Amino acid sequence: MSSKRPAVILLSGGLDSTTVLAVAQRDGFDLNALSFNYGQRHDREVDAARIIARHYGVIRHEIATIDLRMFGGSALTSDIDVPKGRDVKHDARVPITYVPARNTIFLSYALAFAEVIAARDIFIGVNALDFSGYPDCRPEYIRAFENMANLATRLGTEGAPIHIRTPLIDLSKADIIALGRSLDVDYSMTTSCYDPAESGDACGECDACQLRLAGFSGAGVADPIAYVKSRRTATS
Amino acid sequence: MSSKRPAVILLSGGLDSTTVLAVAQRDGFDLNALSFNYGQRHDREVDAARIIARHYGVIRHEIATIDLRMFGGSALTSDIDVPKGRDVKHDARVPITYVPARNTIFLSYALAFAEVIAARDIFIGVNALDFSGYPDCRPEYIRAFENMANLATRLGTEGAPIHIRTPLIDLSKADIIALGRSLDVDYSMTTSCYDPAESGDACGECDACQLRLAGFSGAGVADPIAYVKSRRTATS
Repeated sequence: MSSKRPAVILLSGGLDSTTVLAVAQRDGFDLNALSFNYGQRHDREVDAARIIARHYGVIRHEIATIDLRMFGGSALTSDIDVPKGRDVKHDARVPITYVPARNTIFLSYALAFAEVIAARDIFIGVNALDFSGYPDCRPEYIRAFENMANLATRLGTEGAPIHIRTPLIDLSKADIIALGRSLDVDYSMTTSCYDPAESGDACGECDACQLRLAGFSGAGVADPIAYVKSRRTATS
Repeated sequence: MSSKRPAVILLSGGLDSTTVLAVAQRDGFDLNALSFNYGQRHDREVDAARIIARHYGVIRHEIATIDLRMFGGSALTSDIDVPKGRDVKHDARVPITYVPARNTIFLSYALAFAEVIAARDIFIGVNALDFSGYPDCRPEYIRAFENMANLATRLGTEGAPIHIRTPLIDLSKADIIALGRSLDVDYSMTTSCYDPAESGDACGECDACQLRLAGFSGAGVADPIAYVKSRRTATS
């Protein structure tokens, strides 16, 4: 691939999107990153995204402030408690941490960014295996968004098509970590926890922590971030 | 139709979206409106939307602040001059007032709102005739968004499908005004101008004013809003 093709990478500051950024770099794209401050309970994600973007020499890093709390409906953006110790591997229901239309809003902003910089490649770290409960992480959703994106924009209707690239979509969390390690990703920069302690340590019990810990365990490597040890010990 | 079905109506405060709100009311929907403060040069649109929502007894009116200026690329959201006196009927190019992915971002927020209130009907006042230069006003775009919306959300994947309703899509501006008048729409509440004077009077020369004035002329009725008369006389 040409080293001059710009791409937009949705960068949350988490493990998945950081791996995706490394993949886009490996594939020779000029890196432009987009992060969101979306009424999370904490802004550690955005801080992590800034550090990661700098580390990867991102050309342009935009941080969009959007208020998804206005509509309510998710434990991640409203006052509902984040569930702990849920059986993430066997509970097929859409989890309460699902934010309505979140990936659609994120990808729509990425599409606007892509149109302005004439980037025909948008990378997103969705994963159909570990997040089977989220409708907007499935391949058929991504294909439908891509089809819509090509009809929605001047960029898409004139010239080569826009692609929504999902290099992680079929990978397990352990596979993602193995891929990232093959690309020398430093996972100590990343943050995943839905409900970290004031110290910044991850809770170890929310869905995101469970998936992350199981992934590192499956990949046979240690997770370099800090966890709240006492709380995990008290409940496990 | 049942009088209990909720709908989300994208309400800009303009002529088209106000007509759409009246159509949704006629069709028996419970009205929920969504407006955007998106870095316009003025906030008259949002003020108009508030007045119109109150007038129609909207149950819930959300105003989302989003910053589309961050990406640049449009005369409506950046420092590029709004074109005046363009031949809107015969210039097929995408106009500079086109905001990248705007309708996609607007519809994505509407989808989030719809999911939270379980509304399966989203109304948007897009129009394929008068805005032929905007890719995101075409029927094929709307169908692609609808398809994506049904794959994106819990609401869309469980039960009856979500519909993106575009009652104006095939109408001329004159037809829209005739429809609105048949529904007793008071167009003095609406605002269309891309570049109004400090007094609030419409410029009469931007694309939006030209289309509006031609529409009222075609419908054979007077536009009840005020225009900057001196400026129009000076250049016409």
